[in-house]
Amino acid sequence: MNITFEEFSNIYNLETNKIEKLLSKLLNNRKPKSLYEPCEYLLSGGGKRLRPFLVLISSRATGGKFKDVYNAAIGIEVLHNFTLAHDDIMDNSDLRRGRLTLHKKYDINTAILAGDNLIAIAYESLLKDCKSNVKKIVQTFTQGIIEVCEGQSLDKEFESRNDVSISEYKKMIYKKTAALAEMSCKIGSLIVNANKKYVNAVSQYGKNLGIAFQIQDDLLDIIAEEEKFGKKIGSDLIEGKKTFLFLNAIKKAVNESDIQLLNNVIKNKGIKPNEVSIYRKLYFDLGVIDLTKKEIEKYTKLALKSLEILPNNDGKQLMIHLANSLINRNK
Amino acid sequence: MNITFEEFSNIYNLETNKIEKLLSKLLNNRKPKSLYEPCEYLLSGGGKRLRPFLVLISSRATGGKFKDVYNAAIGIEVLHNFTLAHDDIMDNSDLRRGRLTLHKKYDINTAILAGDNLIAIAYESLLKDCKSNVKKIVQTFTQGIIEVCEGQSLDKEFESRNDVSISEYKKMIYKKTAALAEMSCKIGSLIVNANKKYVNAVSQYGKNLGIAFQIQDDLLDIIAEEEKFGKKIGSDLIEGKKTFLFLNAIKKAVNESDIQLLNNVIKNKGIKPNEVSIYRKLYFDLGVIDLTKKEIEKYTKLALKSLEILPNNDGKQLMIHLANSLINRNK
Repeated sequence: MNITFEEFSNIYNLETNKIEKLLSKLLNNRKPKSLYEPCEYLLSGGGKRLRPFLVLISSRATGGKFKDVYNAAIGIEVLHNFTLAHDDIMDNSDLRRGRLTLHKKYDINTAILAGDNLIAIAYESLLKDCKSNVKKIVQTFTQGIIEVCEGQSLDKEFESRNDVSISEYKKMIYKKTAALAEMSCKIGSLIVNANKKYVNAVSQYGKNLGIAFQIQDDLLDIIAEEEKFGKKIGSDLIEGKKTFLFLNAIKKAVNESDIQLLNNVIKNKGIKPNEVSIYRKLYFDLGVIDLTKKEIEKYTKLALKSLEILPNNDGKQLMIHLANSLINRNK
Repeated sequence: MNITFEEFSNIYNLETNKIEKLLSKLLNNRKPKSLYEPCEYLLSGGGKRLRPFLVLISSRATGGKFKDVYNAAIGIEVLHNFTLAHDDIMDNSDLRRGRLTLHKKYDINTAILAGDNLIAIAYESLLKDCKSNVKKIVQTFTQGIIEVCEGQSLDKEFESRNDVSISEYKKMIYKKTAALAEMSCKIGSLIVNANKKYVNAVSQYGKNLGIAFQIQDDLLDIIAEEEKFGKKIGSDLIEGKKTFLFLNAIKKAVNESDIQLLNNVIKNKGIKPNEVSIYRKLYFDLGVIDLTKKEIEKYTKLALKSLEILPNNDGKQLMIHLANSLINRNK
């Protein structure tokens, strides 16, 4: 019954490889090519495939089997990819995971339409695994999309606002990131007809893990080792993003020159790459790095705590290992 | 049991007014404003509200009541509005129904995100009316979205292709327009648990009516009276669109100068406004206007024929009146 961390890693690799294979076959034989070639480009972009893995382990932890939920898992990954395609247009991003973004590879019109189509393909895939609870499952999925859109809208709104509070920021990351992790876990358990208490437990796990994950993303952007991280360090500051660290630094700064430095990020809509180390030091000096680490730990613990009521099966252990591996990640 | 055309008109006006009211309340109290204000702008743009009316009368014709399907009707109208918002971006249209298009009123990013969100809002509304058949209903709705996206992709693809056949064109309008009419009727009948034969009958009605409607749109663009039409006559030619009339004209032209005239539309990606009357005359001379009228009649008759197996109730009569009123429309 006990699963080691190595066994967890093997299962994660095995299952995310399966997800890759299923994704690569999902759009076979569909036409027109002008629509499906861009869709396939998007889905073949890799990534951690965390959301589908959450669907799998949540179903297993609440009494089901992986094989009950592969289509739902694929559906949620497809949905996630739609959000990436449209977000990249809105953020005018050129690259994602080392490749051209969809609208740069093709054009904006193609990326809009491919994204739209993938929303429907996501529902189509999800529905294949729905046997009972159909209304509840589809409602959960639909609510997830609404949260993501509301989160993205808040995120864009924050770009031009200078009075974003930390609680507003948390609401935004809940909607933009954590809601989909919560939904992944909820759907995994609803499909296998888990009882309400278990559904609630894994949903809370997904939600809190999602929040921890997003705050850690903000943290890694400033303290990761560039080689392992795979992205430029400090890019959030360079782009002038109001991250968890930045908002806390603003709150904690009392020294006139520190306040000035932080206000410059807002005023100039970002900083120069060679200034990153100054802000990195400031974040450390203000205690923002420590505070952020504690916040990540807090949400990870909340995620783990919600699992306590589940019976001790291998699915639960996979969920525990996943939480621990995410808190220790360096990219 | 017999409904006059005047009674039909009264019911149409009454019910589409109800649809307007429901649409205007749909997004009340939702936040953030940066997302929902544009959504409301889009939904308040008016229009014939034909698709929700199809849902209502299909449910009534197959044994249900209007009140069983208002939420589903709203859902389909919301879905239709999402397609308008994203199509207007892709077509770079400035105006729709005399108002600025969503991306011109706001910006492209806002219109993308509002459209995305409305897909989910559409599902949310549809689900409210789902009691049984949930999986089948949601699958039908989802398939409708896929058809619309595939149709839009074909439509954009045709813009840069000079070898579009009439059968390809018909496939495109089926997907882009008729599939949603078919889906409206199918869902209206599925929600009220109609038997399979009746579901099929109203679906065929919606599909054929949708094709007739789109071909008539192409026809009205060239022969409508400008005052009643509300749009500039000949705008399809001005934009160089490969309409049903244009493709048939290409096929029928034998005279060297006629062929030259038609090829100019493709070569120059459209014509000048003052040339519309030349092409109008050409279409008449080549028999394309007559042929198009016959095609519209053919599909309208097919729509009416499929209703024959339905019991003669007021829902069925509304469906017959609607088909007749659409064939006689001038805008």
